[in-house]
Parts: sequence; C-alpha cells; structure tokens
Amino acid sequence: MTLSKIDELALRRCLSLAKRGFPAPNPHVGAVVVKGGAIVGEGFHNAAGQAHAESIALAKAGKRAKGAELYCTLEPCSHHGKTPPCTDAIIAAGVSTVTILNLDPNPKVAGLDRLKEAGLTVRVLDATDFALSAMRINEKFFWFHQTKRPFVTIKLAISLDGRIAAASGDSQWISSEPSRKAAHKLRALHGAVAVGSGTAGKDDPQLTVRHLRVVNQPLRVLFDSAGRTPEQSHLFDTALAPTILYCQSIPKLKRASLADRGVEIVEQGGKGPVDLKGALEDLGRRGVTGLLVEGGARLAARLFDQRLANKLILFVAPILVGGQESFFRSKGVQSIADAPKLNNVSWRRSGPDFQFEGYLSVLGEPKE
Amino acid sequence: MTLSKIDELALRRCLSLAKRGFPAPNPHVGAVVVKGGAIVGEGFHNAAGQAHAESIALAKAGKRAKGAELYCTLEPCSHHGKTPPCTDAIIAAGVSTVTILNLDPNPKVAGLDRLKEAGLTVRVLDATDFALSAMRINEKFFWFHQTKRPFVTIKLAISLDGRIAAASGDSQWISSEPSRKAAHKLRALHGAVAVGSGTAGKDDPQLTVRHLRVVNQPLRVLFDSAGRTPEQSHLFDTALAPTILYCQSIPKLKRASLADRGVEIVEQGGKGPVDLKGALEDLGRRGVTGLLVEGGARLAARLFDQRLANKLILFVAPILVGGQESFFRSKGVQSIADAPKLNNVSWRRSGPDFQFEGYLSVLGEPKE
Repeated sequence: MTLSKIDELALRRCLSLAKRGFPAPNPHVGAVVVKGGAIVGEGFHNAAGQAHAESIALAKAGKRAKGAELYCTLEPCSHHGKTPPCTDAIIAAGVSTVTILNLDPNPKVAGLDRLKEAGLTVRVLDATDFALSAMRINEKFFWFHQTKRPFVTIKLAISLDGRIAAASGDSQWISSEPSRKAAHKLRALHGAVAVGSGTAGKDDPQLTVRHLRVVNQPLRVLFDSAGRTPEQSHLFDTALAPTILYCQSIPKLKRASLADRGVEIVEQGGKGPVDLKGALEDLGRRGVTGLLVEGGARLAARLFDQRLANKLILFVAPILVGGQESFFRSKGVQSIADAPKLNNVSWRRSGPDFQFEGYLSVLGEPKE
Repeated sequence: MTLSKIDELALRRCLSLAKRGFPAPNPHVGAVVVKGGAIVGEGFHNAAGQAHAESIALAKAGKRAKGAELYCTLEPCSHHGKTPPCTDAIIAAGVSTVTILNLDPNPKVAGLDRLKEAGLTVRVLDATDFALSAMRINEKFFWFHQTKRPFVTIKLAISLDGRIAAASGDSQWISSEPSRKAAHKLRALHGAVAVGSGTAGKDDPQLTVRHLRVVNQPLRVLFDSAGRTPEQSHLFDTALAPTILYCQSIPKLKRASLADRGVEIVEQGGKGPVDLKGALEDLGRRGVTGLLVEGGARLAARLFDQRLANKLILFVAPILVGGQESFFRSKGVQSIADAPKLNNVSWRRSGPDFQFEGYLSVLGEPKE
C-alpha cells in the first residue's frame, strides 16, 4: 500500500503524540483526525483511567469528524474498561476511514472487526516502518502480551569504572541532578518499580515519581527473601504508593503488621532467594506490563543470569570510584567471546553524565 | 583586535590543517598563505624530520608569497633542527604579514623577534578562541614544555561493566575492529607508547602503529620493575621499533642480552615498583612530549593515584564480562563526593563501541 503525503504527515504526528504521557500499564497511543488534507483533531493517552487518544482527537475535531479519516498508532478498543469503547465514539462521530499501525495483542480489544461491521474503511499498516516505530514505543506492552510477564528494565547509576557505591556503601549521588530527574521520568513510564533487599535496607528509597506530575504512582515492588527490610522503611508507607513484597517466608508478626499497613505480601514458601521468574509471572497476572529495577547489583546480576532482563539503562557519571562493588556481580565469562552482548545500543548526554541504553532481549524469545 | 572575514577563514583552515599528520614529538602546525583575499598556499607538519607547515605553504604559494600574508597556528621556528629555520624561508619569500595563534614555549624557537627584526608585521592572536583551539590540538606539546614530562594518556578497551579481561585473563578482543584501528591512530599521535609488565607478559603486544602509514614509529616503553618480561617478547625486537625498559633492577645476564638486542635499559636501582615519576622525567629529558599508556589495570591505577595521568580514553564495548578485574584497580574512595571527577568529557561512536574521553589534569597544575 502506498502512503500519501497526508498519510505520512498524519502518522508522523501520531507517533510523536504517542510518545507523550505516562499511560502505564496501558499502551502508548497517539491519534489524529484528518479532514480535507488537514489535521482537525489530535490526542494521546495520558494516563491509565483517563480518556483514550481516539476519544480526545474526535472530541477536538467535533463536527468536523463526520466523513473524516482517523489515524491511530494502535487498534481502537471495543470493550468497556475504565472508559467507554473507542469504537462506539468513532462510529458515532461518522468517521469514514480508520488507519491503524499496530493491532492490539489483547484479544478483548477486537476493535477492527467492530469498525468493519459498522461499514467503515479500515487500513492496517502493520508492515510499515511507522508500525515498527509504534511497536518500539510500546515495547513493554507488546512484550507483556507475548510472554505474560512484565518487560524488565534495569536502571543503574554507575561511575566510569562500573561502581554503584563507594567502599563505605555510599551511593549518593553518583549521577547528576539531570540524570536523577530522567530516572524519575523512567519510573513514571513503568507500571512498577523494584529494588532488592540490600538497596532497600541501605538507601531506604521511596521509589515514587517526584520532580514531575503524574496521575498514577507506579506499584512499588520489593524482592526480600526473608522479609528483613525494616518496618519503618519508606517502601512500607503505602500512603506514598502501593507496595508488594515478594519473599520466600516472613515472620508471622511482621507479616501481620505489614499487611495492616496495606502492604501486599506474596510468600513463595520456598528456600533461598526470591523466585524472580515466579514473581514476574505474578506481576504479569496483576497486569504489570513494565518493571523498572533500580538495584542493587545482586538483583541485577540474578535477572541477567536468569535471562529475565530485557533492557539495561546506565547513567554513567564521569568519576572514578575504585574498590570492588561492580554493578554487574556475575561470576563472569571465561573468554571475551562468551560475554553477553547488548543490542540496539545508544548513548546520549545527560547533564555531565552519559545515558547508555541497550537491549538484552527484545520481542520474541529471550536471547540465548 | 577585530578579525576580518579572511582572517577567520584563514585561521579556521589553519586549525583544520593542524589536526592532520602525526608529528610527534613535534607540535601540530597548520599554515596558510593568503594573497588578494584567497588562500594561495597551505601546509601542515606531517612527521618529525619532514618539512614544516610554513615551508610547505610557502613552497605551494611560490611567487605569490611575495607581499602575501602568512597565518600559522604556532610561532615559526628560527633555529636549525632537522630542517632549516622557517623564519629564513618566510623572510626570503617576501611575506609582508605573519599572524600567529600560539607562541612557541620552546625558548630556542624565538621566531617572533627574528621576523620583527626583518621588518615584517607580526600579529599574535593568543587571546582568541582560535588560539585556545590550537592549544588543545597541541595539549601534549604545551604540557611537556610546562612540566618537562610527557602528557600521559591512558587508553583502555573495557566492557560496559568496566572489565579489561575475562576471568581467564582473555582480553582479545573486547573492543571492535573500528576501535582497534582508532587505537593505532592514537599510537601514531604519541611519541611513546607504554605498558606494564603484566600486560607485556600476558598479551605480548607489539605496540607498533599498524593499519595506517606513519613515518616514525613511537618509542616503546616497558615498565617492568624486576625485568621479568620474557626475552623473546615482541617488545624486545627492536627491528620493529625502539624500546626503553624502566626497571628497578635486572639480572646482569639478561641486561647484557637485551642491550645486545638494542633495548635501552634504565635501571633505577631502588626497590618495589618502577618509580613512574622518575621514568616520566627521564622520558621528558629524551624529548618525549606524549606517552600513551595501554595497560594494564595496575599501571593505570598507579598513574591515577600518583596524579601522573592527564587524560583517559576508554573504548567501551557493549558487552558484560563479569568477574573482578576492573580497569581501575584503586582501593577506592570512601564516599562518592571524594571520587576523582573527569573534565571536558565526551563520548563518540566507534563502530559498535563508544569512545569516552576525559581529562584528569590539563594545562597548569595537576588537579588536586
């Protein structure tokens, strides 16, 4: 299918809109309404529970939506969730043609058929570069629907020599203020944010989104095998945000006390460290599409070793810390040729630091 | 002093020419001859022992040099070195005005006075941004003249987690072919290239410039306290390039055998590791303006700890090696705030790797 100039203009605008907002655990969606060769309405999905991109774009277009063309990055929904089905609004507005980049992997959505039944012309451009870009914007969402587990991004602030803390355990602050702000934005883009018990005990992080306004705080996830994290920790203050604790076992009294404070506790009932794959599957059942892991080194290494990590984001500060505490506490490979290689890597400036991004596993099977 | 359009054009061209060539241990120099608002001759200093930038530019200008203006990044020489004095050529060509960015810190040069005595108009633009750029291009040369020691650049290929080798010691190849080629170019830009005994024993490097043509191979420097590096090592094959060995002591027979093979041996006569500062001072006396240190981790850490390193260049490969062997084997700081910070940092793509550059000490006193 050849695309017209106006198709390309509309789709580029859709992609740019889709990147806005913090819709986790929902997908990113951008939509525009085109009439007479001009964009007459546009929208994006800003936050779970708020209006969908298509509804916003149609509302902005108003009466001009009649006979117009709607472009959207993802198949419009036809089911009642927290908001009414978009397909109803599209049909009611009298839109003539709907152009979709990616089909929704969620079988409940099925908006395509509903629109066709109503007599609209529907174009699905899922073999285009535009569709690929839209899929990348929703990498967490598509991974989740394929694997039923959240897409796992490990984010760490490291020194040039790969350290996440000084010899004393001090880690505040390796990265710069611009990097820490970028880290809050990353939290806002994830349905859940996790740390291991070491980081929870040492840094007492809040794991909430600050420095920018969001509608929904991410779910806070603590991996703490024996439930040793102190009760007075910020993570157990559920007035800040909800918290779920994955442990193998926890003393009964502590369990009761944490439950009283609103902490959700999943006791796996086994031995040793938390079963991470089990915990990710559980998070998947709870609808968490993306999990941001903020440390520490041991949790990061276990996720790597078990091939459960999808993406690595490093804020590299131009300092030299020395000592032994590397961010990658794996026993290591015997030869360089065996070292896990990251894909689609990029670097960008972040204040005085540099932000590295690379992938360990992308859509499809985890990389062997 | 305000610069005309033609001044700016000529100076920009001078800077761009100065970056070419591999003149170590000499400075980088670019020169252009301007007549009637146009560049009529240009040149750069390609290699020690070859013609100077000014002579080349004048030769290209030919008769047009009469009454012309000469621009050069560095004060022209007035002494007989390996080539005749440039001032004589400038005066003989009938140039009317000479514009210089940086004065030569070498008192033997003194071309400025010679030109003025001959009645030429001389402009020194050492307070301009052009002069600052020219000084950066010659950072090794200016550092050397200020401190009498070579400017020390540490270059290492590391993994994302700061490793220079796998658990087995294997380090070939952490970085990509484009990065290894860039490393050969770095060698060519230095008067000397060094390794410690660990790297010499393990990797048996040649430390010669390959993959690009150069007139002069850098001096090879081995820091090996007890002179334990095997006699059959590439470093002791002086048919490849000259080699100097710094040690505290070396068995007499080995000393004689290495001397027979043309290796220069400096026995410091003390105990423990090589006295690095003493070795750098000795290299300074030999006229080495820039030393590229290619490993290993211990030598790099000692240079850092003794504040003898000026610049760090890392080729960061997007792989995760694990294990303990970090490139920065320092005992480490107690708090992050105490960690040495690098200045003027930059990152650029190098094949699949990223090349980091940052400064520990620049012109003036070493950073405390």
